[in-house]
Amino acid sequence: MPINTWIDYQLQTHLPITDRGLAYGDGLFETMRVHQKKIIFQDLHWERLKQGCSTLKFNVKWDHLAKQQHHILNQIQVTEGILKLIVTRGSGRRGYDPHDATPRAIWQFFPEVKRDIEKLTQGIVLFPCKTRLAHQPSLAGMKHLNRLEQVLARQEWRDPMYTEGLMRDFNGHCIEGTMSNLFIVHHDTLITPDLKQCGVAGIMREWILNHSKINIKQSIHIISEQTLSAASEIFMCNSIMGIWPVKQYKKNQYKPGLITRQLQKKLATLGYDSPQRLSTEIDQ
Amino acid sequence: MPINTWIDYQLQTHLPITDRGLAYGDGLFETMRVHQKKIIFQDLHWERLKQGCSTLKFNVKWDHLAKQQHHILNQIQVTEGILKLIVTRGSGRRGYDPHDATPRAIWQFFPEVKRDIEKLTQGIVLFPCKTRLAHQPSLAGMKHLNRLEQVLARQEWRDPMYTEGLMRDFNGHCIEGTMSNLFIVHHDTLITPDLKQCGVAGIMREWILNHSKINIKQSIHIISEQTLSAASEIFMCNSIMGIWPVKQYKKNQYKPGLITRQLQKKLATLGYDSPQRLSTEIDQ
Repeated sequence: MPINTWIDYQLQTHLPITDRGLAYGDGLFETMRVHQKKIIFQDLHWERLKQGCSTLKFNVKWDHLAKQQHHILNQIQVTEGILKLIVTRGSGRRGYDPHDATPRAIWQFFPEVKRDIEKLTQGIVLFPCKTRLAHQPSLAGMKHLNRLEQVLARQEWRDPMYTEGLMRDFNGHCIEGTMSNLFIVHHDTLITPDLKQCGVAGIMREWILNHSKINIKQSIHIISEQTLSAASEIFMCNSIMGIWPVKQYKKNQYKPGLITRQLQKKLATLGYDSPQRLSTEIDQ
Repeated sequence: MPINTWIDYQLQTHLPITDRGLAYGDGLFETMRVHQKKIIFQDLHWERLKQGCSTLKFNVKWDHLAKQQHHILNQIQVTEGILKLIVTRGSGRRGYDPHDATPRAIWQFFPEVKRDIEKLTQGIVLFPCKTRLAHQPSLAGMKHLNRLEQVLARQEWRDPMYTEGLMRDFNGHCIEGTMSNLFIVHHDTLITPDLKQCGVAGIMREWILNHSKINIKQSIHIISEQTLSAASEIFMCNSIMGIWPVKQYKKNQYKPGLITRQLQKKLATLGYDSPQRLSTEIDQ
């Protein structure tokens, strides 16, 4: 594999073993879509990262981090891809007490963005994960490095017919996918679950709720499996692949609806693939 | 810092950045007390590690791991210390799907064991942590790398008068310390909390319950703060420092009791310090 990783400004393949990201998952990450050598949702990613660093009390020098990102985006040879940023508390001695560790920024660039017209156009099948999300309001919403729930959930299926798995909490409420957020349209309202107890507050979710200017009533509300089965549209979203319509969950089938398509169309103007655009490309 | 770390058989200071232990906390660890160049609770540590690897579906070659440990214990220059073993799922591509990663063993040896006669003899003061432990039966009991709850809890105090913090769950039940397990003596019964929903099933806890042959009625049971305040003895334990009597929690004061002292005495025969032994050493 070519070297695609930087720590601070240095190309690196390895990390000090003393890093607390390894020892305790004591860190955060952002997985950012790069389009034309820019981060599409730059401000939203950094806002979330700053909130997380504040909660964990990481003393990050934000101007240094911005310079590093600028340097890396200049260095890469392509214009499209994924930039993953891990910020850990840095190296420390054994023990949970963070003392005065200096945060470490680890940057990885992946030039590939999987493009899959069928998933964007026809939709995906959701696997019903058995692994539940625990309620932990002190960590909910954050994209931290403690992701064993997602690892366990993703291990539940190997059949490639399932693109994503749906995770519920211990009340049985539908919360999110293993790597994406959940939206439904139900009674002419766009609904996404509340994430105060568990789940990752995704950047695409944030964009849809507060920046997309989509013309529909919105609600942050509990989604039971019963509500899910009565939805007129379901989609999963994240800042890498955009929006996937859900075509099947358990025995229920769905069709990509008007809101899903409108949002995909808006995203296409920002640099994401849209089903239409991909169709055109394939027709050529 | 001198190099004290091995990956497989190689002395290393660094770890591949692709390791899933960093990315997702996708791994487990054991912190093992070394006495006379042997792990005191060898079998119990490996039993817990095997259970964890089974839950996470790590395909560990146990005979290789045993040979590595033997090699390292031969290499170290001292007879006493702490051997920390981290087993991660190994390196993988981006995404929660573990694919077919090969587990990686990271060994760190720390020659120091903090010896503190006052804590063993007089006891410690417990800080009442606000950070609660989430209920997650899929991960409860395991010593995995997702330890942000403990990091948050340990950040709550800096005053060195507190040696350890007590963590409760969201029902308000007392579960464990940030780095130790909780036992109390109440109505002539030795009680420790159930860990099916949260908490780490410590090796010292396991030894006390099933191997110490201490002569007292035992119970695995909910411990409320009310029960705690009515306890005749409280102690915290882990496999590094042994057993610390608790002398204060909130406004309640306690004295080290008979059961605490009996267990400390038994541990002294295995290589742990006992208050008596340390006193003798200091008198010399």
